[in-house]
Amino acid sequence: MGMCEGKTFKFSNATITSFAAVVGKVEGEGPYGSEFDEVIEDNKGGTDTWEQAEAGLQKKSLQYAMDKAELNPEKMDLVFAGDLLNQCTGSSYGLKDYYIPFLGLYGACSTFAESLLMAASMVNAGYVENCAAVTSSHFSSAERQFRFPLNYGGVRTPTAQWTATASGAAIVDASQKAPFIRAATVGKIQDMGITDLNNMGAAMAGAAYDTITRHMKHMGTHPENYDLIITGDLGQVGSDMMYELFKRDGVSVEGKHKDCGLMIYDRDRQDVHAGGSGCGCSASMMCGYFLKKVRRGELKRILYTATGALMSPTMVQQGGSIPGIAHAVEITSE
Amino acid sequence: MGMCEGKTFKFSNATITSFAAVVGKVEGEGPYGSEFDEVIEDNKGGTDTWEQAEAGLQKKSLQYAMDKAELNPEKMDLVFAGDLLNQCTGSSYGLKDYYIPFLGLYGACSTFAESLLMAASMVNAGYVENCAAVTSSHFSSAERQFRFPLNYGGVRTPTAQWTATASGAAIVDASQKAPFIRAATVGKIQDMGITDLNNMGAAMAGAAYDTITRHMKHMGTHPENYDLIITGDLGQVGSDMMYELFKRDGVSVEGKHKDCGLMIYDRDRQDVHAGGSGCGCSASMMCGYFLKKVRRGELKRILYTATGALMSPTMVQQGGSIPGIAHAVEITSE
Repeated sequence: MGMCEGKTFKFSNATITSFAAVVGKVEGEGPYGSEFDEVIEDNKGGTDTWEQAEAGLQKKSLQYAMDKAELNPEKMDLVFAGDLLNQCTGSSYGLKDYYIPFLGLYGACSTFAESLLMAASMVNAGYVENCAAVTSSHFSSAERQFRFPLNYGGVRTPTAQWTATASGAAIVDASQKAPFIRAATVGKIQDMGITDLNNMGAAMAGAAYDTITRHMKHMGTHPENYDLIITGDLGQVGSDMMYELFKRDGVSVEGKHKDCGLMIYDRDRQDVHAGGSGCGCSASMMCGYFLKKVRRGELKRILYTATGALMSPTMVQQGGSIPGIAHAVEITSE
Repeated sequence: MGMCEGKTFKFSNATITSFAAVVGKVEGEGPYGSEFDEVIEDNKGGTDTWEQAEAGLQKKSLQYAMDKAELNPEKMDLVFAGDLLNQCTGSSYGLKDYYIPFLGLYGACSTFAESLLMAASMVNAGYVENCAAVTSSHFSSAERQFRFPLNYGGVRTPTAQWTATASGAAIVDASQKAPFIRAATVGKIQDMGITDLNNMGAAMAGAAYDTITRHMKHMGTHPENYDLIITGDLGQVGSDMMYELFKRDGVSVEGKHKDCGLMIYDRDRQDVHAGGSGCGCSASMMCGYFLKKVRRGELKRILYTATGALMSPTMVQQGGSIPGIAHAVEITSE
């Protein structure tokens, strides 16, 4: 698909030493509700606004992760964080009181993979002893910002995804216990010409295909070498598109593939259309569910690939398409 | 000021091998106008919108930097980029056609220092052979997004800064020729309780003070060890506040200090109130002016500290304050 290969980074000293997830009420009522560290029943999280509530999710998820690692903010060397809100204020307002050296990222819904790979890079290289990766999203703050104000009462399209109210936090260090981050591949921006804000899965499918393909090529692996290939929030439409792209290369990923957006809700019971999305969706599924299974050795090798739609309502209103990106992080139990 | 020290990263293999800056008409008419690689006279840069024009600035500045290093996009391993637009679309739309592995950052006006320090970290650790750092800002797209639409015709307050229409791009590799990136300190978010969107210099002064203080402590240096301490866009109000904070510690930085926001325009001749701001302001002054002086040995050791106001109009409308951050990058000629 491209001329420039890019590189896959390899790590020998990057452990996800602790991880935690905090979610909203709807996510708490989903099939993995009991796996999360806390379910916040109040959509405003005891604050006055959705935006402050989202900041609160990040604050809580990082606190849980620090508690589990017996770390406090004074002992934290660095945090990478991002979210979907304009100017990434979920991160800056959520984490400012911890006073930890802070590097803000923006990768839309790919941000948790981006932050994990950056945390692994910095710990593995020895720049820091530990580094946190934190992201969040919130249904109400995202709808207000990206689509329509909720009280507009618009009918959602069938391809529309449901932004998860959720945050995940992971702390990486060099402690040599599972889960290990073994490798990572940075995504390239892919533009498939999609212009529909309610069809982001399609905009991201090409990016997932490209990054996973490059990662496996550089690692010398095939889908059968992984227990699971986990995408962030392609949804059903985006997943099907990704399968088609792999099929052109004679590669089948369907049997190994799980999409966090398709898992976080019970789509028969919960009215969430094409599934979940948002920076917090795969962050909470990774930190609430998948990383536990890797730690216990029930999953030995997974390829976590979070996709992001690098779109802006302003650009789409100007007729621009929605570029996608995906970053891949390989995580193992040994 | 804080309990947590954080770390200063040291680099022995990080050279800024090429750099370039592209600016708008007003910046081209400023005192350093002749230093920039290109001055775009048309505010929309030949496109239909200001946002597309800003994307074009990033595309151009990186192209100039690649040309100077005799690199093409296929030979680029990684790019860190960010801007002030919502969803950082100046970066994603500006750089998507290069198809270079892309990591998006958000640090408001601190983003060029953030991207430089990340580029140095990744090259110095050997993850990549080269890595670009690119940021931009645009007066018209920023005014529309952050304050008032330009056609509202509001009177600007005296403390208001003028968002620079500018982009800077630098390429870091391990080629062992000046300028060298020798060290960097990641900022912590500082909240000084400022709530005025037109007084961002004050919101950022504490962050600059904190990061520069920690950097010098870790390096065992004092202001006199540097030829210059260069801040991004504190403006006069923010610079004066920073001097006051240093004075409490018995440290004088005035004689060594230059602020890119106070340099980029001729404030007697150009009606820019408190000076320039924006991700592109210090990026273009570094890539158009200061790095040339380091390469020629006219500046031997500089501490570039870009500050960012991590504010969102939404949070400020909700009564929130404006947190600031600053990242420091030490650059030497030997």
